[in-house]
Amino acid sequence: MSDDQGGEHNFASDNVSAVCPEIMAAIVNANVGSVGSYGSDPLTARLTERLKEVFETDLVAIPVATGTAANALALSVLTPPYGSVLCAESAHINTDECGAPEFYMGGAKLLGLPAPAGKLSADSVELAIAQARAGGLQSAQPHAISLTQSTEWGTVYSRQELASISAIAAKNDIAVHMDGSRLANGLVRLGCSPAEMTWKSGIDVLSFGATKNGAMAAEMVIFFDCDRAAGLAARHKRAGHLWSKSRFLSAQLLAYLTDDLWLRNAGNANVSATYLAEGLLKIEGVCLLQPVEANEVFVILPEPVSTRLRHRGLGFAAWRRGNLFNQNAFRFVTSYSTRTSDIDRLLNSA
Amino acid sequence: MSDDQGGEHNFASDNVSAVCPEIMAAIVNANVGSVGSYGSDPLTARLTERLKEVFETDLVAIPVATGTAANALALSVLTPPYGSVLCAESAHINTDECGAPEFYMGGAKLLGLPAPAGKLSADSVELAIAQARAGGLQSAQPHAISLTQSTEWGTVYSRQELASISAIAAKNDIAVHMDGSRLANGLVRLGCSPAEMTWKSGIDVLSFGATKNGAMAAEMVIFFDCDRAAGLAARHKRAGHLWSKSRFLSAQLLAYLTDDLWLRNAGNANVSATYLAEGLLKIEGVCLLQPVEANEVFVILPEPVSTRLRHRGLGFAAWRRGNLFNQNAFRFVTSYSTRTSDIDRLLNSA
Amino acid sequence: MSDDQGGEHNFASDNVSAVCPEIMAAIVNANVGSVGSYGSDPLTARLTERLKEVFETDLVAIPVATGTAANALALSVLTPPYGSVLCAESAHINTDECGAPEFYMGGAKLLGLPAPAGKLSADSVELAIAQARAGGLQSAQPHAISLTQSTEWGTVYSRQELASISAIAAKNDIAVHMDGSRLANGLVRLGCSPAEMTWKSGIDVLSFGATKNGAMAAEMVIFFDCDRAAGLAARHKRAGHLWSKSRFLSAQLLAYLTDDLWLRNAGNANVSATYLAEGLLKIEGVCLLQPVEANEVFVILPEPVSTRLRHRGLGFAAWRRGNLFNQNAFRFVTSYSTRTSDIDRLLNSA
Amino acid sequence: MSDDQGGEHNFASDNVSAVCPEIMAAIVNANVGSVGSYGSDPLTARLTERLKEVFETDLVAIPVATGTAANALALSVLTPPYGSVLCAESAHINTDECGAPEFYMGGAKLLGLPAPAGKLSADSVELAIAQARAGGLQSAQPHAISLTQSTEWGTVYSRQELASISAIAAKNDIAVHMDGSRLANGLVRLGCSPAEMTWKSGIDVLSFGATKNGAMAAEMVIFFDCDRAAGLAARHKRAGHLWSKSRFLSAQLLAYLTDDLWLRNAGNANVSATYLAEGLLKIEGVCLLQPVEANEVFVILPEPVSTRLRHRGLGFAAWRRGNLFNQNAFRFVTSYSTRTSDIDRLLNSA
Repeated sequence: MSDDQGGEHNFASDNVSAVCPEIMAAIVNANVGSVGSYGSDPLTARLTERLKEVFETDLVAIPVATGTAANALALSVLTPPYGSVLCAESAHINTDECGAPEFYMGGAKLLGLPAPAGKLSADSVELAIAQARAGGLQSAQPHAISLTQSTEWGTVYSRQELASISAIAAKNDIAVHMDGSRLANGLVRLGCSPAEMTWKSGIDVLSFGATKNGAMAAEMVIFFDCDRAAGLAARHKRAGHLWSKSRFLSAQLLAYLTDDLWLRNAGNANVSATYLAEGLLKIEGVCLLQPVEANEVFVILPEPVSTRLRHRGLGFAAWRRGNLFNQNAFRFVTSYSTRTSDIDRLLNSA
Repeated sequence: MSDDQGGEHNFASDNVSAVCPEIMAAIVNANVGSVGSYGSDPLTARLTERLKEVFETDLVAIPVATGTAANALALSVLTPPYGSVLCAESAHINTDECGAPEFYMGGAKLLGLPAPAGKLSADSVELAIAQARAGGLQSAQPHAISLTQSTEWGTVYSRQELASISAIAAKNDIAVHMDGSRLANGLVRLGCSPAEMTWKSGIDVLSFGATKNGAMAAEMVIFFDCDRAAGLAARHKRAGHLWSKSRFLSAQLLAYLTDDLWLRNAGNANVSATYLAEGLLKIEGVCLLQPVEANEVFVILPEPVSTRLRHRGLGFAAWRRGNLFNQNAFRFVTSYSTRTSDIDRLLNSA
Repeated sequence: MSDDQGGEHNFASDNVSAVCPEIMAAIVNANVGSVGSYGSDPLTARLTERLKEVFETDLVAIPVATGTAANALALSVLTPPYGSVLCAESAHINTDECGAPEFYMGGAKLLGLPAPAGKLSADSVELAIAQARAGGLQSAQPHAISLTQSTEWGTVYSRQELASISAIAAKNDIAVHMDGSRLANGLVRLGCSPAEMTWKSGIDVLSFGATKNGAMAAEMVIFFDCDRAAGLAARHKRAGHLWSKSRFLSAQLLAYLTDDLWLRNAGNANVSATYLAEGLLKIEGVCLLQPVEANEVFVILPEPVSTRLRHRGLGFAAWRRGNLFNQNAFRFVTSYSTRTSDIDRLLNSA
Repeated sequence: MSDDQGGEHNFASDNVSAVCPEIMAAIVNANVGSVGSYGSDPLTARLTERLKEVFETDLVAIPVATGTAANALALSVLTPPYGSVLCAESAHINTDECGAPEFYMGGAKLLGLPAPAGKLSADSVELAIAQARAGGLQSAQPHAISLTQSTEWGTVYSRQELASISAIAAKNDIAVHMDGSRLANGLVRLGCSPAEMTWKSGIDVLSFGATKNGAMAAEMVIFFDCDRAAGLAARHKRAGHLWSKSRFLSAQLLAYLTDDLWLRNAGNANVSATYLAEGLLKIEGVCLLQPVEANEVFVILPEPVSTRLRHRGLGFAAWRRGNLFNQNAFRFVTSYSTRTSDIDRLLNSA
């Protein structure tokens, strides 16, 4: 597979990429004979075993095809319909899933908190909980906190930041969910173990993404506290997300977790983003909106620069969220498949 | 009925009041013989006729016992589960109904917008619509705007303000809902006709409140655009809000609309609030958080003053919402039953 | 209050009646001064204490205005959205509430079982559970059984029948809900204590009705297992069923439970039904569809008889449910206010 | 791909099969370069064009990964939360999707009607509508009829049967949905055109299945009445069923519709089922529960026969549904990959 065949590399998102070769090979290899359906196949069983090794703990995992499904299912188990979830105002669950979490939770509220650089803080979370408690029966009480790693602004929570939020959550008997749509990118950045960035930092439930990092359509909901997962399997089925031929989801995820493919892919994306940001900053008038800590670059581009790039057919996205409704704000996303030459071509066009 | 029998007048809310005598008499008078159930009684028929006179237009109305039910039913007809509703961050539907609108709408989102003095502006509404449109399929698209008259901060939209918001709504094919939990207070303030403050100002659907202004438990959902009301009756029934003995809701509302009772009651409440505010402002260190335009007074009280009032058993409410989490902010609400002597006693205690 | 003022007595339902005098007096008497709102008033506190005496046990109770609300709230606490509820095919929750339980439960299924005479049997319940268990993840698993006392066919479960169903439920860790819209009628029939017919017979949650038996609009959800009631208060609020002036619901229910008013009212209704049935059976061609055990009489009337009664303006209801779609099937309901003379007039007209 | 590699052929379901080679090749071939995400890729555009040719009409189609998702999405567009759907008691949507339709519809009811051989009849549909209409506001009114082609009992509606049900629907302004999880099997049986079996027979909305007939995970919701599809795209997204890399769904479906692959695959499955049934009937004591018209065989097997087959490791399913709770009832399903030799081996083992 080579991007050259598809024309210019596209920086609009990491989900415009093709499937990486190792994962496509795994799909093809899974296509042998009859196996049990609805998750009773050998690959799905092996996947759970592999996850226990990767995360060094017991867990419950179900594979699904999209990140929206993973997030919505996870939150629906944690939060009753009369409850609420604290998240960043800019969280994908709050702005980009067309109300999927509210649908799955049966109408529970997302309370979007101001989150500079896409990150919740222990203080903002604590204040929001105090306000809800003061509201009593009139307020939808928080049952979960959802944070995104790496964040929607391409930043990464440190382990201390995660731990301080989790501590507030634990004190208030509130669960912590991590939207790991770009989990591997955050993990590579922190350089710690999967366990350290998740359950050892107080994360109870994880949406584990692979699609943006090389898979075809494969994510997981992972409960580290198995007792909390009651109802997950039934919700999975009734949402229409249980595949009859589930081996083809599990095959992707097993390949993803083999020979550190997930970390290698994310490593390439992160390095590419830093290289791209450094290059863009050399252009007069360009400034970064956020520090580049994973695989996304948010910039203000002078109007002539963005026009030039558009004319040359380069893919990148206008970025207008929340209070940022600036015509010159843009997002560039790098992926496992971005090459130095792709970035150089882009910079030369700017 | 005299508040003296119940001890000190309570300024915590207008819903701590008793039922006003005219309305209680109407309930007692309705209790004669068998009549059709589930809305097929003569009083309910008469109520609809009376409403058409009051609002000078055709309309569809259903009576319910609570304002939360009225709001949630109204919004559920206007907004599909995959849509959203624009409202003030401080709106009662967003902060004080424990997620009722989300429940009734099947998970549609409330998008709380910054609203100084509790009021949406045409600009903020227009920006929010533009952002949602830009978000495409990822964003829950706005199908309704909900505004409160008088607002949660005791202020009142002018007719021009209503018209400018409605114009944006109409241009974008979005319905406008008015939460009229304290409708009469706003109407008395504006001094215009019910028609002028509602459908002539572009309001499509109204929650018409009576409970806070002298009824026992009586509100209405009123659709001025009858075609838009499809499904309202079925939603009413399946929410458990259709009374079998519906005459006892309609009797309250008929009395409320007889001999201007609703306007007289609200007039007393509004005058009382102004009188109370003027008195409080004479105390050193007291300042108003909002202009007093209806029957609510939001103030900062010096700590010794609030302590003195509490010690003397006076009822009023600590007020902590949104970014206002000040220990010294309080709300006083006046009602149809507040008397000058009640306010004087309070001021003398301060 | 006298039905004579309202013209002919109406046998169409027990909810066409007026409010009985004792309850109306209690409403009027509750209308004194300011009291706490949203359930924090003294009458609501006293109601819970009275209920503990009546049922001889600790319990959690909330008052609501309609039976549909009581049923839907009760079931929503017992059953997750991915579960199911076993009930009679003819159950009011299944046929006459326009989907309220499904709404409140967030889409859980009602599985209507064949129920001769309106009664579930231990056998039919056991089979349905076995089928669901066999269906595994594909089947919505039963989390509650709902039975109606007295039933929709005017019959009454014996204590043995209740106990045998509850035993199956307990064995399968399934809760039992009793729809007591006409609870007092069933209780009078059995002649046992309220405790014996409910929690001592394995009932976990009760919808306790008063509206059909003399109240204006007053029912309760009662949890005998207090631990199971988590979330009830929040669901109550977000459904819009928490009255701000809640004292007026509690006043009705306190009066209802004072001096055996509820049992005296139901006693009159039951005796009247038996008297009516005996009279109707003397008419040639009339036959009963069900034994008369409470306050409802289901009959086949020869066409000339029903026509005669209709022409004379008498109120009664055509009855077409399930497989019974017979033009000559009718329901007559007696109430607390039915008098011997009302029945004699009806029989003389037939 | 050969089943031999996977051991004995498995007759438990058609979804235990591998992906057929043409479809797997299409997936691999789609994996080239960057393309637009979320349905904006060229393959998805081409798919819609191809469907218009196949069905000889304009239409709106969205691809999803599971049949449960297709059914639930389709019904959620047709039926408001306060409505109901008429279907066979034995319908997959009613018995095997863990409440998915109720979830997506926001709590609307499925009314399961007795359906001999898995088929609704015009008469039973008409009676159910009349009953609901008679119930008025208390009844959840039917907004859709859902029928399955081929049915859950392996039978096939004739075009006349479809037309007579659709006529009743049209007369009552009710939409008709076809669950075509095994659409190709029904189509091959009838030998008519896709248009004739669907919109020309009054079908408004189709769940078009491919997974059971050779795809990996690919189904579609197809609206023949484009105006009716409002909200479909938003519901698709918020259910988490919109793939970012949607090309991989569309590639499967395009291959499925190329060179009559879908009809050839179904043809093999149907012929195999007939051959299997004929063989089984030669065994003493075996009897068919339903005529074999598509790719499923429902039989009563004498206990020694079923035991022998189990011991030899052959896959087939115990079948216990509705009133059929017989230990000796079984289902055998054939697929695109079933070979004569597989069936002969099974018959020789019996």
